[in-house]
Amino acid sequence: MKRISSRENPIVRRIRAAIREHASEIVIEGPKPVADALGAGWKPLLLARSEDAQPLDDSASSWVLLSAELFGSLAETRTSQGVLALFERPSSSVSAILARRDTVAVALDGVQDPGNVGTIVRLAAAFDAAGVLLLPGCADPFAPKAIRSSAGTILRVPVAEVTIEELFASGIPLVAADMHGAPDDPPAREAVLIFGNEGSGVSGDLIRRSRSISIAMSRRVESLNVASSAAILLSRSYAIR
Amino acid sequence: MKRISSRENPIVRRIRAAIREHASEIVIEGPKPVADALGAGWKPLLLARSEDAQPLDDSASSWVLLSAELFGSLAETRTSQGVLALFERPSSSVSAILARRDTVAVALDGVQDPGNVGTIVRLAAAFDAAGVLLLPGCADPFAPKAIRSSAGTILRVPVAEVTIEELFASGIPLVAADMHGAPDDPPAREAVLIFGNEGSGVSGDLIRRSRSISIAMSRRVESLNVASSAAILLSRSYAIR
Repeated sequence: MKRISSRENPIVRRIRAAIREHASEIVIEGPKPVADALGAGWKPLLLARSEDAQPLDDSASSWVLLSAELFGSLAETRTSQGVLALFERPSSSVSAILARRDTVAVALDGVQDPGNVGTIVRLAAAFDAAGVLLLPGCADPFAPKAIRSSAGTILRVPVAEVTIEELFASGIPLVAADMHGAPDDPPAREAVLIFGNEGSGVSGDLIRRSRSISIAMSRRVESLNVASSAAILLSRSYAIR
Repeated sequence: MKRISSRENPIVRRIRAAIREHASEIVIEGPKPVADALGAGWKPLLLARSEDAQPLDDSASSWVLLSAELFGSLAETRTSQGVLALFERPSSSVSAILARRDTVAVALDGVQDPGNVGTIVRLAAAFDAAGVLLLPGCADPFAPKAIRSSAGTILRVPVAEVTIEELFASGIPLVAADMHGAPDDPPAREAVLIFGNEGSGVSGDLIRRSRSISIAMSRRVESLNVASSAAILLSRSYAIR
């Protein structure tokens, strides 16, 4: 097995570029997310582990071995546990996401924290949403923190950028999570469920064209974290589907 | 109004100590969480704002004005928006939390991320849980990141450290969120709802003495983030209460 210790090695440069730019290639960190991705049939462009990490039980793939110091300089050590894999950045289309009518799609409107975006991608996978549509102002779902929060699901949840005009033109019912709406169950299917910015919620234009629903809660608390709202409404949508 | 620009000023030292040590005094950051705390009747030990921040609409309290540079050196600027307040660290007892039988209590078992602990405190407030009990291995709920994630609710949700023996001795039904349990509604009242470590879940000793319940989800995903699980089960417990 090839062991690399130079920061200038082309493979190391390629990993570093994928972490920094996440343009055409992205990095998944951690033995569990990487094993899940391989198990789901995703073909890695490259598998790398630190020389002091446990090898994954995957004899079919060939691994690049990095010195512990070099690995530490590349990856978020606690999450990666010495294992990372390079994959092609997946791409999906708005129309493919909106074509699925047996479930809901998620749209995010100005969700700025990459941890929230990644957590919502993970929730979309858990509750079988058609995909995650990103309106302007959202964090990049392929940023390292978002990928980590997605726990590897970023590879298989369709994600695409969308405009407010495309949403309106689609004719699909829009339902906005909004603390001023009436407490109600979310739709089970044939709808786009919209979650808004951490501070200001779903923007006015969208609110006006959507049905607003809220989550029943104590009057002493005004709002929930956006990922908490998404967890509650997506889980409920799945339960009544 | 007093304007301070020296890092060695005793008031500044006191704020810095509260952020770092959060022992007998804690800092709440941000205009909204601070206004909420004042509105709820909490008496601040000290209110401080940056000279370039909007004053809160609170003429009853006296504010200390800090130079923008000094404020920036103390607080997490994006969250605080130039406003912070010092409060006495609240203290609650296990017995007071377990005495409430009209709702559930939450127990956390080795939840290591302060963001998760703070988010679950916020959820406990939103869904009127009796309080949050911390088993060994949890992040400090008064760490700055946990306080920020609680969005100010840390002041009013009772929080106390607990041992596994105290939980067993209480005689209150224990219900563990566990992916190997059967999908079921959580209890509405008279129970402790237990959430476990981010990687390994609820520990074996507790699992054996608890009823395990899981959240219905796609088979393609193995687990949720612990704060997502708490959002779903606490919201459901509130809805059926």
